Amino acid sequence: MTISEPGAILLLSCPDRAGLVSRISHFIYERGGNILDLDEHVDTIEKMFFIRVSWSTSHFSIPPIELDEAFGPLAKEFGASWKIRLGGRKMRVALFVSRYDHCLQELLWRHSIGEFRIDIPLIVSNHPDLEPLALRYGIPFHVFPVTAASKQEIEQQELELLKDHDIDTVLLARYMQVLSPQFVESYPSRIINIHHSFLPAFVGSSPYRQAYERGVKIIGATSHYVTEDLDQGPIIEQDIVRMSHKDTLDDLIRKGRDLERLVLARAVRLHSEHRILVNGKKTVIFD
Amino acid sequence: MTISEPGAILLLSCPDRAGLVSRISHFIYERGGNILDLDEHVDTIEKMFFIRVSWSTSHFSIPPIELDEAFGPLAKEFGASWKIRLGGRKMRVALFVSRYDHCLQELLWRHSIGEFRIDIPLIVSNHPDLEPLALRYGIPFHVFPVTAASKQEIEQQELELLKDHDIDTVLLARYMQVLSPQFVESYPSRIINIHHSFLPAFVGSSPYRQAYERGVKIIGATSHYVTEDLDQGPIIEQDIVRMSHKDTLDDLIRKGRDLERLVLARAVRLHSEHRILVNGKKTVIFD
Amino acid sequence: MTISEPGAILLLSCPDRAGLVSRISHFIYERGGNILDLDEHVDTIEKMFFIRVSWSTSHFSIPPIELDEAFGPLAKEFGASWKIRLGGRKMRVALFVSRYDHCLQELLWRHSIGEFRIDIPLIVSNHPDLEPLALRYGIPFHVFPVTAASKQEIEQQELELLKDHDIDTVLLARYMQVLSPQFVESYPSRIINIHHSFLPAFVGSSPYRQAYERGVKIIGATSHYVTEDLDQGPIIEQDIVRMSHKDTLDDLIRKGRDLERLVLARAVRLHSEHRILVNGKKTVIFD
Amino acid sequence: MTISEPGAILLLSCPDRAGLVSRISHFIYERGGNILDLDEHVDTIEKMFFIRVSWSTSHFSIPPIELDEAFGPLAKEFGASWKIRLGGRKMRVALFVSRYDHCLQELLWRHSIGEFRIDIPLIVSNHPDLEPLALRYGIPFHVFPVTAASKQEIEQQELELLKDHDIDTVLLARYMQVLSPQFVESYPSRIINIHHSFLPAFVGSSPYRQAYERGVKIIGATSHYVTEDLDQGPIIEQDIVRMSHKDTLDDLIRKGRDLERLVLARAVRLHSEHRILVNGKKTVIFD
Repeated sequence: MTISEPGAILLLSCPDRAGLVSRISHFIYERGGNILDLDEHVDTIEKMFFIRVSWSTSHFSIPPIELDEAFGPLAKEFGASWKIRLGGRKMRVALFVSRYDHCLQELLWRHSIGEFRIDIPLIVSNHPDLEPLALRYGIPFHVFPVTAASKQEIEQQELELLKDHDIDTVLLARYMQVLSPQFVESYPSRIINIHHSFLPAFVGSSPYRQAYERGVKIIGATSHYVTEDLDQGPIIEQDIVRMSHKDTLDDLIRKGRDLERLVLARAVRLHSEHRILVNGKKTVIFD
Repeated sequence: MTISEPGAILLLSCPDRAGLVSRISHFIYERGGNILDLDEHVDTIEKMFFIRVSWSTSHFSIPPIELDEAFGPLAKEFGASWKIRLGGRKMRVALFVSRYDHCLQELLWRHSIGEFRIDIPLIVSNHPDLEPLALRYGIPFHVFPVTAASKQEIEQQELELLKDHDIDTVLLARYMQVLSPQFVESYPSRIINIHHSFLPAFVGSSPYRQAYERGVKIIGATSHYVTEDLDQGPIIEQDIVRMSHKDTLDDLIRKGRDLERLVLARAVRLHSEHRILVNGKKTVIFD
Repeated sequence: MTISEPGAILLLSCPDRAGLVSRISHFIYERGGNILDLDEHVDTIEKMFFIRVSWSTSHFSIPPIELDEAFGPLAKEFGASWKIRLGGRKMRVALFVSRYDHCLQELLWRHSIGEFRIDIPLIVSNHPDLEPLALRYGIPFHVFPVTAASKQEIEQQELELLKDHDIDTVLLARYMQVLSPQFVESYPSRIINIHHSFLPAFVGSSPYRQAYERGVKIIGATSHYVTEDLDQGPIIEQDIVRMSHKDTLDDLIRKGRDLERLVLARAVRLHSEHRILVNGKKTVIFD
Repeated sequence: MTISEPGAILLLSCPDRAGLVSRISHFIYERGGNILDLDEHVDTIEKMFFIRVSWSTSHFSIPPIELDEAFGPLAKEFGASWKIRLGGRKMRVALFVSRYDHCLQELLWRHSIGEFRIDIPLIVSNHPDLEPLALRYGIPFHVFPVTAASKQEIEQQELELLKDHDIDTVLLARYMQVLSPQFVESYPSRIINIHHSFLPAFVGSSPYRQAYERGVKIIGATSHYVTEDLDQGPIIEQDIVRMSHKDTLDDLIRKGRDLERLVLARAVRLHSEHRILVNGKKTVIFD
């Protein structure tokens, strides 16, 4: 699943019709590209076509930088939403955190051993607690103490900071503030949250307490894209762990921490390798 | 986990206090019983004590039939809910089904190879479709075509039938009718349902369709005791299976069938071996 | 994942080179086919290319029956191993069983509700025990009581029987005889076995006993293609279930039965939908 | 599952006989102890009895420090192996590491947030690489560069160091040296290893490579007590993760890292909470 360099990745969705794979693969082939990985999906109910293709550009007849212009006419004919990413470029990601350290700890450690193809130019928090951890990994840490009164203004400052750093994606690594619709709209399908329940079970606050009180035998964690509707965005990844009557609320929280870390890390990997297409309220995951 | 015969099983719950294990185990020991399996649990929040003990009665100094009378005073002192089951006696179970055959098929096959310590004197259905399957296993099949108008009267007939056959437990093996509160009250913590979702997600009807439309990456099944509140009873067992964007609604239904069969079968096993105590809205499972 | 009809499926593997996807998809497109599903894989170490494409033939410009001839020149140029299956045609499968009924029961039931796109013209056994189950589903049951002395001759008779019924694939549903190399060679990558362990752990006989004595915390089941080397063939599917110190050998066998049923059923589904390509000692599974 | 303090935990195994639970629980009760958790197991084949009891000593009539002497006669009568641990005392653990940081990172982080009831007075390594990580958590790091020639002498130095620090248990957190039988004998059932395969599959070196070449669909990790026979000690915990044909050897290593971390952490938790009894080549886990 590793991406060879130099290379390019196309993510595209459009109304389904005959010849899409043929014409897209031909576009690559006739320019000297060698397809390394191709995955496609047709939603036969919505009649939509989804594709991810990665190819080697080492013998490519046009400079990768001109790919967008070259592919544009074809995409226009298909009525497609699309994006071509060049393999060598890393995604620029900002982490938003509050007080819990487990997700931040996990992401920074994985990043430090090279698991993700991302850059993390900055970390944003509404509390100063996790600054030492950020600094240990040499990443600038920005504290914005949000209040109800200041929220609108602070979010504006945060958005400017993100823009200044050319941020592509925001990861909410147990960030305990609800983002405003204005903020969410600025990063459509580019804000990833980890919710500590098996959505759609236990939306909202204190999902572990809700799970404990309901007496479920399995708890879960869900990573999803953030939309205006709380905990309703397209789901990227979920996983679960078994519970028993012996488990206290503290045990749920402890076991859940492991889930949150793994599920969020998998979502980061999928997103940063351009393996996700949004299909309405759902995702198509090319893993 | 197999129960040796002859033997006895005590299931007991009461307010927690010092000496419970000591006095219960001493009661068994001084009558010549040898404890085969003991499992206990203290709910430290509710301050409740739960225990399951099984013991060999081959050298027992009193006839097992007199156990209830002998243990009564101790249980009264503890303020306990309790029941002693004699290992040799099988639980008498009625199956309620509608049109789907997978759960019935699974239970009858497992029963035929001796996986459950139960007798199945009869099967009840609101449709005639599954009669051939019942007859193949030699079990009487009773059709009660329920309508809104006849529901009350028919449930009364069903309850009488269950009483006539000395039924202990009712299994709803994809029975597509909601039982009335009156019916439910007649079998407290003795009606088991299989719901084809990961409760509390997707309560009510068409959970697979709900799951499909939400785009979850995991679906589940839940077996639970039936209470007056639909899909809200104490959960016995849950399990899950992964989904992807490739899975159609039919795929969810197909994969879910396997889950439903396994989860219901595990609940039947736990219940029939007297491994479950109800703790308010939850269960304690001594597996 | 369901196959629409009428349609065709190509399974192909060949040394990797540029343009394979483009030329194969173009072959389909220029004949009026609409690709429904395409999955490809490149083994970058062995430099081999694998593809599965299914397409609708409802507007196809050549009769599906002529597909082999039309595609032949391209496949020859690629140096490919390949096969085109027409969606409407069901795979003809023979089941081999001995005394355990759980796998046979499971396959016949799933087949009866339409889960598999196969025909089962006959069942072969070295014991008469399961004949009633076969007859319940209306499938001819052939008993060949194999002995060491008669093995060679009996296998010859079996092969003739399979040939007479135009059998494509043999499923060993807990068939307790080792097939001779001669037999195996007659159905290369077309004999599927279910081994009741997590291969390569516990090869050979009594894997549950071996697992019990080793004290593993997880047991497994493995479906694989049969090759001359016992339990060494390419693995199709595996799954596991947790064990504890409480589990007796009988519990392992009981829990293992559920695994065997599920894992074999999944292998049958994958194989019969032409989703498997063999890559040396491994499989490529396009699910 | 949390241990209240002050309290005590008894772990005991002996030949099975009638009255064991009664007499042990009575011993606690008559001294004013209140049992918080009791779990027992009878191996009916080996006819051995295993028990773990924890109780509150807040109203205990004898000082906890005198418990060993008070319980001794009873244990002697039973012919038991046993140990009483006082809840307030943390287990003293030494970590042995080489170059891989993931297990060390995980254990130190979990330890830092209070997940384990252990003290880690020192870390031993045959390489200096991980010293910065150890120092970040303020734990002394001792480098012993082992060679074939120096092994015996160095192990002697290590044993003295462990003795000086009153070490109870040694955790091999991806320590890439095989310990000598002499070393192993010094810590019977008190050295825990993490092996990066699903034992008994893929014993010895390079299990991920072995798994990759065999083409398994699931890989695993196993934590076990170390005995003289490499990778043959009693298994404490195992877990697995699914693989596909898309996964390269690097993917196996990456996914396996997550397994190793979780499985080793669970073993540390179970061991440090005195939840494990060894039964010949197996373990009894009271979780």
